[in-house]
Amino acid sequence: MTDKDQVEQLYAMRHSTAHILASAIQQLWPEARFGVGPVIEDGFYYDIEVPGKQLSKEDFWKIEETMRAIITRNEPFERYEKPIDEAITWAEQTNQPYKRELLNDLKRAGTTEASKLNSAELGAIADGEAQIEQVSFYKNGNFVDLCKGPHIASTGGVGAFKLIKISGAYWRGNEKNAQLQRIQGVAFSTEEELRDYLVQVEEARQRDHRRLGQELDLFVFSDMVGSGLPLFTPRGTVMREAILAYANQLRERNGYQKVHIPHLTKRKLYEASGHWDKFGEELFLVKSQETSDELVLKPMNCPHHAQIYASRPRSYRELPVRYLETTAVYRDEKTGELAGLSRVRAITQDDSHVFCQRGQIEQEISSLLEAARELYITVGMTLRVRLSYRDDGDAYLGEPELWQTSQEQLKKAVLANKLEYFEETGEAAFYGPKIDFMATDALGREHQVATVQLDFVQPKRFGLTYTTEQGTTEQPVMIHCALLGSVERFMAVYIEHSAGKFPVWLAPEQVRLLCVNQTEPIVEYAKKMVVDGHELGLRIELDDSNESVGKKIRAAESSKIPYTVVIGEKEVASGEVVPRIRKDMAVMDVPLAVGADQFLKTVANEAKSRVLKTSL
Amino acid sequence: MTDKDQVEQLYAMRHSTAHILASAIQQLWPEARFGVGPVIEDGFYYDIEVPGKQLSKEDFWKIEETMRAIITRNEPFERYEKPIDEAITWAEQTNQPYKRELLNDLKRAGTTEASKLNSAELGAIADGEAQIEQVSFYKNGNFVDLCKGPHIASTGGVGAFKLIKISGAYWRGNEKNAQLQRIQGVAFSTEEELRDYLVQVEEARQRDHRRLGQELDLFVFSDMVGSGLPLFTPRGTVMREAILAYANQLRERNGYQKVHIPHLTKRKLYEASGHWDKFGEELFLVKSQETSDELVLKPMNCPHHAQIYASRPRSYRELPVRYLETTAVYRDEKTGELAGLSRVRAITQDDSHVFCQRGQIEQEISSLLEAARELYITVGMTLRVRLSYRDDGDAYLGEPELWQTSQEQLKKAVLANKLEYFEETGEAAFYGPKIDFMATDALGREHQVATVQLDFVQPKRFGLTYTTEQGTTEQPVMIHCALLGSVERFMAVYIEHSAGKFPVWLAPEQVRLLCVNQTEPIVEYAKKMVVDGHELGLRIELDDSNESVGKKIRAAESSKIPYTVVIGEKEVASGEVVPRIRKDMAVMDVPLAVGADQFLKTVANEAKSRVLKTSL
Repeated sequence: MTDKDQVEQLYAMRHSTAHILASAIQQLWPEARFGVGPVIEDGFYYDIEVPGKQLSKEDFWKIEETMRAIITRNEPFERYEKPIDEAITWAEQTNQPYKRELLNDLKRAGTTEASKLNSAELGAIADGEAQIEQVSFYKNGNFVDLCKGPHIASTGGVGAFKLIKISGAYWRGNEKNAQLQRIQGVAFSTEEELRDYLVQVEEARQRDHRRLGQELDLFVFSDMVGSGLPLFTPRGTVMREAILAYANQLRERNGYQKVHIPHLTKRKLYEASGHWDKFGEELFLVKSQETSDELVLKPMNCPHHAQIYASRPRSYRELPVRYLETTAVYRDEKTGELAGLSRVRAITQDDSHVFCQRGQIEQEISSLLEAARELYITVGMTLRVRLSYRDDGDAYLGEPELWQTSQEQLKKAVLANKLEYFEETGEAAFYGPKIDFMATDALGREHQVATVQLDFVQPKRFGLTYTTEQGTTEQPVMIHCALLGSVERFMAVYIEHSAGKFPVWLAPEQVRLLCVNQTEPIVEYAKKMVVDGHELGLRIELDDSNESVGKKIRAAESSKIPYTVVIGEKEVASGEVVPRIRKDMAVMDVPLAVGADQFLKTVANEAKSRVLKTSL
Repeated sequence: MTDKDQVEQLYAMRHSTAHILASAIQQLWPEARFGVGPVIEDGFYYDIEVPGKQLSKEDFWKIEETMRAIITRNEPFERYEKPIDEAITWAEQTNQPYKRELLNDLKRAGTTEASKLNSAELGAIADGEAQIEQVSFYKNGNFVDLCKGPHIASTGGVGAFKLIKISGAYWRGNEKNAQLQRIQGVAFSTEEELRDYLVQVEEARQRDHRRLGQELDLFVFSDMVGSGLPLFTPRGTVMREAILAYANQLRERNGYQKVHIPHLTKRKLYEASGHWDKFGEELFLVKSQETSDELVLKPMNCPHHAQIYASRPRSYRELPVRYLETTAVYRDEKTGELAGLSRVRAITQDDSHVFCQRGQIEQEISSLLEAARELYITVGMTLRVRLSYRDDGDAYLGEPELWQTSQEQLKKAVLANKLEYFEETGEAAFYGPKIDFMATDALGREHQVATVQLDFVQPKRFGLTYTTEQGTTEQPVMIHCALLGSVERFMAVYIEHSAGKFPVWLAPEQVRLLCVNQTEPIVEYAKKMVVDGHELGLRIELDDSNESVGKKIRAAESSKIPYTVVIGEKEVASGEVVPRIRKDMAVMDVPLAVGADQFLKTVANEAKSRVLKTSL
């Protein structure tokens, strides 16, 4: 079977499972009325109304049993057609008002209009030409449904399924209509696939960064501050700064220099850069009460960095000029679109801009690719890149020859870095070709993260120049790059990827000491270890509370602390500790029992090396 | 002579010098018409109109010579009075329309109204009672002026003077009136004082942070970004971050933890905190185009930090909670009020907030005072503090007893830190007592810098609590503190204080290597030193350009680089260098000629220790 055949087969099977769900409902509650029952990602749903009865998850067991019986009976799916008026009569006689409404609309509208009905409804009606005359039905056992198919041959062909959710759903999505009940299920070819799916869903739920963000005390939201505007707690800030420092360090070693720009700016700057035309509606407008200035919150940093470049004459000798800045850009997102850290209104970028000669593009791109590769290896995600080129259209600015040679330089840099890649023509930005990085996380989900973009347009718009060795004036090329992209979004992805089990270099608390009791020698010894740890730059904390050791250990576990050390009389007497290592982590580079100093030094080295010891 | 007598004597002398200026003008241009000639800081001015003649600085020499002749003649200042109508006749006969206008106004208005005239004019008119009848005149040589005095006995009593400036000035400050010419001078008791003053003015001009900011390439402004919105170049950013890191480090060692908040927030937050009522007009309002949210750019960070505190229950065990953040607040200043970094619209604060128990106030304040003291010793400024207490008024919120004990705790902390202090009653904020730090710079100017404020109000407004050891619920006290205050303003002060001669830890470029020529062994040796320096964390740069060594040395001097090292064949052969040390700095801790490695290590240690080697 080809991939396409497999996809179609799975689609038909899921659709058939929706019919089986409806058959079961009809057997259990013969008065039930049916809306539509389409295929969705991983499964299906059916919208149902049982007069006088509110279904709940409690009913799932009974419904599933009935469905299983239908599957065991292996009832064939029989297709037949009826003229549309007979179909309407059928709907009336069987007391199916929603089906009747669909049929009436279909008759009135004809095919052309019918294509405007939502796809779920279209799934239930016949393919027609100019005028609908016949509609198709499918029947299994005693259950008959208006349906355009396709279906599998018989109910026994259903693999594995599970009902997962029940919720209210307005008929045809309109809140003025009756509210039906939507029963949602998933279906797969095999029990094994279903089990894998359910495990992954539970895993994703456990890893949800909003849930972990609260449990691990990383960030909070406040109604008074507003949605999409997270507040990072001390623990979240430690992580945030550690990630940012690393992303910066990977570029600083290649000659990038930090700069600092204001978040507020005259809108004139973005009119000059061209962003105003493109993003005008997504901008936050700022009203000055004291002046007539028309200000905005910056949606981009490149025009500011270009202003710094332009602030004095530049010679070919100082190129490439490389600026780097961690700073926020602002997007006026609709409140409904905001979710945890994935989508925020103040987006912190690890943004960098290179101003270089044409001949320097490949080298600059290559060093950025190397930095990105190192970063994503360190966090344990696999990367592939998309090379986005121009097509033959006229939507692109800049000389075609420059595009041609630049695209070649991008590809050479990707090949030199041995990155998995694919190419797409027509996906370039209008101002230059680009490379996008896709990282696959521990759940197998792919996220677009870093990006490297060439820009031939802004240097021109802002009149940027440099003096060549020959004394002539040339325009530099700009290279935009963010290795993390949005820090908030990166953290959302990373928290879910790591399930909150952060490696030592990112863990807000790296070591926790637990005192077995509150006697002075033990507490003093632990306090001394804390001081020693701080001197080594460790994030080490002390639990000398009145709780039992068991309870303290469980608290440290649920906080996912990499190393926990119990301090009792034995430890004080011997000067040795027996570190408890978080379960997902490989063992330490030290013996089971180790001198307290040696233990702290080993952890400090582990933090510096950013070694990935966790199995994600 | 008492201080007060001296001040009055100096005032009279400066005022007399203004008359001497006018006498000289009248001798040189008998048709001259006179406006007013008051005393100002350090000197005086006179507003003058010479029909058909535009005076310029070229005329100063001639005017000063004529003034000196008048002083040599030692003409007595004679006072006499005239009825006001006779005075008006005098003004008409002598063709002095501005004097006539003043006299007419005076006659019409009487004393009461006259007091609304500006002080410069009042300086020229008689003291009167209910009704002006007589006005006083002063005469020296042939020059007569309407004037209330006082004057010195005779022109010979003038010490040392100099004309410094000529500019346009509308009659009575109204741009609808005629434009006169304002000649401005300075006058002191002795030549020595005058010379000191002129040296200091030149020094201040040389040290002007706007001038140095450009010369040393620290920050720039862009018309497209807007006034009051500086862009920090790589060099300025290095300095900025080094200062901030230090200010943070001084608190982090005392348990402060970094947090991170958005710059954008619902205005609701500031309505709840009370800032909206107080600062509403200075706020930048932000318009969301996608939602109906009413947003502002934050003018304060405390309400956000309070939201983080409030995000989960707190126990007495975790108090004090100490948050620290480098972040910008926004003030909608009038554009005319903006000047370099001294006054900006996006103000970066090194802001911190402590939430503690009442009994912990003294300890917390004390550790902040110690941090402030260390910081200002490091940058070479002397500090004194103002303790601002409440008075008996009812403008203060919070229990009087809490005020009383807190004020005592503040004072104890100041005494414990052996800080020079003074106390002011009635200067507290409405929400709590405070300590303000005044730092004196190398030019003897005093600047208000750090501040530590107690706050009894916000914890109440935001309902902040903690659970006591006894299980009851209490309200914490908040302590606001910024050690630098505004980082931009601190930089403005510091650049002028240090005249741009930054110590090694703050110098954007710490070491510059100069190659005597471009031969390979020399350039390679220098490049290796650059790499070694970078590994030690040094900011080291290489000048291997084609210029002469003399020119390279002068360039390094004008960039005020602490250490410059010339690399030639001798250095390559011996492995030893002879560092050139910036003139203001004490000698290095190494011999004159030193191994290149040893030199780099010594500079790296100097940077870490933040030692102040410069004589400012």
